[in-house]
This record gives sequence, C-alpha cells and structure tokens, in this order.
Amino acid sequence: MNPNRQFVREAALFMREHDRFLVLSHINPDGDATGSALGVVLMLEQLGKQYVVVNEGETPEKFAFLPRFDQLRNLRKQPLEEKFGAVIAVDCADESRMGDVRSLFDSGVRLLNIDHHPTNDGFGDVNLIRTDAAATAEILFDVAEELGVSFTEELALCIYTGLLTDTGGFRYSNTSPRVMEIAARLLSYGVKPGEVAERCLEEITFAHVKILRRALQTLELSHQNLIASITVSVDDFLETQAEREDAGGLVNYCRNIEGVEVGVSFVESEPGVVKVSMRARDRVDVSLVAKQMGGGGHAKAAGCTIRGSLSEVKQKVSLVLEEAVGVKSDE
Amino acid sequence: MNPNRQFVREAALFMREHDRFLVLSHINPDGDATGSALGVVLMLEQLGKQYVVVNEGETPEKFAFLPRFDQLRNLRKQPLEEKFGAVIAVDCADESRMGDVRSLFDSGVRLLNIDHHPTNDGFGDVNLIRTDAAATAEILFDVAEELGVSFTEELALCIYTGLLTDTGGFRYSNTSPRVMEIAARLLSYGVKPGEVAERCLEEITFAHVKILRRALQTLELSHQNLIASITVSVDDFLETQAEREDAGGLVNYCRNIEGVEVGVSFVESEPGVVKVSMRARDRVDVSLVAKQMGGGGHAKAAGCTIRGSLSEVKQKVSLVLEEAVGVKSDE
Ligand SMILES: [Mn+2]
Ligand SMILES: [Mn+2]
Repeated sequence: MNPNRQFVREAALFMREHDRFLVLSHINPDGDATGSALGVVLMLEQLGKQYVVVNEGETPEKFAFLPRFDQLRNLRKQPLEEKFGAVIAVDCADESRMGDVRSLFDSGVRLLNIDHHPTNDGFGDVNLIRTDAAATAEILFDVAEELGVSFTEELALCIYTGLLTDTGGFRYSNTSPRVMEIAARLLSYGVKPGEVAERCLEEITFAHVKILRRALQTLELSHQNLIASITVSVDDFLETQAEREDAGGLVNYCRNIEGVEVGVSFVESEPGVVKVSMRARDRVDVSLVAKQMGGGGHAKAAGCTIRGSLSEVKQKVSLVLEEAVGVKSDE
Repeated sequence: MNPNRQFVREAALFMREHDRFLVLSHINPDGDATGSALGVVLMLEQLGKQYVVVNEGETPEKFAFLPRFDQLRNLRKQPLEEKFGAVIAVDCADESRMGDVRSLFDSGVRLLNIDHHPTNDGFGDVNLIRTDAAATAEILFDVAEELGVSFTEELALCIYTGLLTDTGGFRYSNTSPRVMEIAARLLSYGVKPGEVAERCLEEITFAHVKILRRALQTLELSHQNLIASITVSVDDFLETQAEREDAGGLVNYCRNIEGVEVGVSFVESEPGVVKVSMRARDRVDVSLVAKQMGGGGHAKAAGCTIRGSLSEVKQKVSLVLEEAVGVKSDE
C-alpha cells in the first residue's frame, strides 16, 4: 500500500476511536490553519463525535464566513478548565506553534499531528505529514475520503479556503496538478470561488489603505528603473494608527511595476530598526541579497532586519543591490 | 454523440482540410484572445500547416511571454497583400470584432468561428460556440485533444493563459470544475502558474501607480462607511501622463476595504464627462443603481457615464446610493 495511504488510515482511525477531541491549529492562524481546524470539526460532527476547537489567541475576523467560526474559542479570553485526552493539531510545524493550548493536554494525551511543513518533526503520537502537500487542507481532503464522510458545501468550503490561501490564490509554485484537481472537486460541491477569494485574499483594512497612501508618496525607482522601493516610518504608523500587519504586501506594488526586477520595502518597525522585504522577478535571487545582510528567504521573496536609521539602511541595501542587478544605484 | 463533440470534430476537420490559414482574434485583444490565437498557431504547426496570425492593432506587450508572440502581425503597421481562403477566428463575439482584418478575406473565404460569448451569432462557415465555456481557450483544449496534437508546455501555456485571464485568476463565477480540471492537466504539462499570473494579472504600469497615488488622496468613506469612493480628474491624467486604462481597477481598492458594501470610482474622462464604476459586495445590486442613471452591468459590477462636473456627479450618485444602501450619505 502507498505509505501515504497508510498514514491517512491511521489518522482516520484516530478520529474514529476517540469520542471527545481538542482541535487546534497554530498561533496567529492563517487560512489553512483555520480552514483545516474547522474542516476537522465538520468531519467530527459527521462522525457523531464531541469536540472543543481552540486557539491560543484570536482568529482574524475575515475568516468569519467559515462554518463553525463561532465555535472557535480564544483561550486568552475564554480559559478552559477541562483537560483533553485526544488532540488533533493541524498545520503546526512543531509543538511550540500550538502555543498555550498545550496547557489543556491531559497527562496521558494522545495527539494526531496533521501537517505539510517540511520542518515538522513528528511530535504527535500519530503523524500524518506530507511535505508534498500545498496545504494541510489538501491532506484533509484525503482524510475525508478515507472516513467516507460526505463532502457538504461547508466542508468543501473549509478545505478550499486552505488550498486557496496557502497557494496564494493558486499562484505559488506549490500549486500542483493535484491541488487543482481537488479544487475542481470542491467547486463541484458548491464552493463559490469568487466569494472565498474576496474574503481571504482581496479584503484590505482601511488602515492598510491609509498606510499605502503615505507609502506610495515615497515610491522611488532606481538602478535604471530595475529597482522600485517604498518606505514606511514609525511616524507613518503613528499618524495612520496602522498596525504592522496593515503594511503587509506593500512590497508587491513595487515588484509588480512593469520593467522592475526587484521591489523593496523599508518598514521602520521601531525607531532604529528597519525590516527590509524584497520581491524579485527573474534576474535576481533576493535570498542571496538578504543573506549578505544577515537575513534569508527564497529566490523570489526574502528579507532581513537591519539596525540603523531609514536613510542609513536604504543606503546600505542600495549598495548590495547594485551588485545584484549589475547597475549603479544612481544610474 | 454529444453535439459539442460533433462541433469539435468539425473544427478539427477544418484545420486538417486546409493548408494555409489566417488566424485572428478580436480588436484590443485580451489574454484569452491572444492565448487562443497563439494556441491555434501551435496546433497548426504540429499539423504541418502554414499560417499568418494577425490583429488589426497592437497586442499588449505583457503577453510577450507567450510562444510565437513575435509572429503576431499588427495589420496597421505591417499591411498584407495576401488574401486568405481559410480563416480561424477565436474569441470574436461577432464579425465586427475582427476589425479591418476582414479586408484580408478571399471572396470565397471559409471561416471557422471558435468562441464562448453568449451573443455569438454563428457568423462562421463552421461554428464551434460553447457558451458554457469560461474561455475560448477551454474549447481549444478539446480541439487539441480531438486533433491528437501533443500538449507541449508551450501549447499548455497558451491555453492556461486564456483560462486564467477570462476567469480573473480562477475567481469569477465562470470558474467551473471543468476549468480547474483542465488547469490541473495544463500544470502537469509544465505550466508555472505563478509566472503566468505575474505577467497577466499582477503587472501594473508606473503610470497606474502614479494615478493610484493621487486617487487614494481622494478616498472617502460615506453612508456609515458602507460606501467608499475615489475620484480621478482630468488634471490627474494630465499631471501624471497616465492613460485612461492606467486608471483601471481603482474601484476595487474601494470595494475591498473591510466593511464596505459598495466601492465607487468617479473618473473624469474629459471635462464634464464622468465615468462612474461601481463594485458591490453582498447587500446591493449595483446593476439596478447603474440602470437608474442610464447605465448597466451585473449585480456586483456596473457603471454609467454622466455629464456634469465631478462634484455634481458625485452628489447625484450619492443620493441614488442612499436609497440602495438605506443610509443617508452624511450619516
Ligand atoms: Mn499550511
Ligand atoms: Mn474570451
């Protein structure tokens, strides 16, 4: 038998042989974590099982369209006395990602670990880890098939949300034929792809718009227009009352400009500390650039944190990028 | 036999029984038009046929990553003397969409019309029209299978580009299970989904960024924050040297703000003429709103053109929207 199938069977068995479960995903949950946790919950309901679904902190409100979102318990706001003997952890690369939820484990706890991160060390008693899966939700699709539960529109929506968000809207290189095949099945069960994308990928905060508005004023093209950069200062955050996460994605505006090879954002997270994010098109491997400055990442998306004033950091990065693109900064 | 299959066979036969073809798509070609025309070209090459691929005008440079893009002839810049007896028109809803390319037709011309627009009137001698297809490229996938040509990475890329662009990145309601199944197949032939999306959906012009920067300064929330609007004046176009198409998509920034039900952009195309675009989330059918002001569209995307100054038009639209959202504009 395909070893993957064997692990899927063990996961299904785990869900069948216990009666009451603690279901959790990781701290600062994303669409895959939330969709997968709620997908597990819907499967447990179909199996007639009991569950509590918990996260250490808050789950972003944008996922409120998901079924059973109101069941998601924020442990910080609603502490629990109960201890659990059976736990299902989804999308957690290691134990620490579960956060304080671990305090709810019984001493003899049995844990089912369903995940797709290559760094997962198999911390569960039963481990269903497939690093070739684009999302934990992709693995859950197989678990649902193995269990024989029915693919209701609600269950399909949870799984689709995980696939969509962890593949960046079917755009990252993890978008395999298998991902698309599963998406096709989920659409046939009634998922509306536009509505999910609208909620998960397109929605922006008003604070994001305010910070974008200021940041665009700082947009600069340099290195013969091969590099575009944008700058956000601590003052920008103060005056727009934006949070750090509201500045997410600004670097993409730079990279997406036609002719630009590298987009860079300089975000001053606190006075004297600048987070540098880089996105590349074809010609430059920004992970090498980031490495030179003590950071890391992938060829097309990398970053580093540098101490110094915004202008010092911009100067420093500009020189390193000169070499990477082979063009002087002032040309 | 499935009647669709019969039409696919006739289209395949048409390609087999002629030797030299004129291949064309529609004026102002989009990703489906261009991907489909070049997809046909690649199939003809595999069949050992000759072809000229032509458009009345220019094809956007952003599609230059497609194979045989350099073969696409801009008839305005490179007139042709030759007349053609066999024509393949893709993605053209009616004859007028072919533009001046019709001047290249021989008097006894035979035309194969492959399209998915519901308004297509069957202007070809052979018509392969499937209004349930999300893109002309979706139909071409079946033609390629019928012909038995090999799905090279290049052919897959052309078809994928049509699917991706006509479904808005697999987000519009025409994203059927079949679209996703075909996309899965195309990915298995080597298409890199991120690269296609980067070229076709994410790239923006510097002029767009400049007009966005100015437009965001005008962003207003009204009607208890249910409506967000943005304004672009003739002066904005003059001072940024942006073209009308650089202002595309501005209305989405409004609609995408969390809590907003209707996003509106007011774009002054010439002094005293304002193009109003509206995008809705759930509660309002903006096609009804647009209709009241002499325009039209769909429930979630509609618009109209109104004569008057920007402030007059904004005032007028605001009153109509008051009724639609049930909240006064100044509340
Ligand atoms: Mn994940
Ligand atoms: Mn089309």
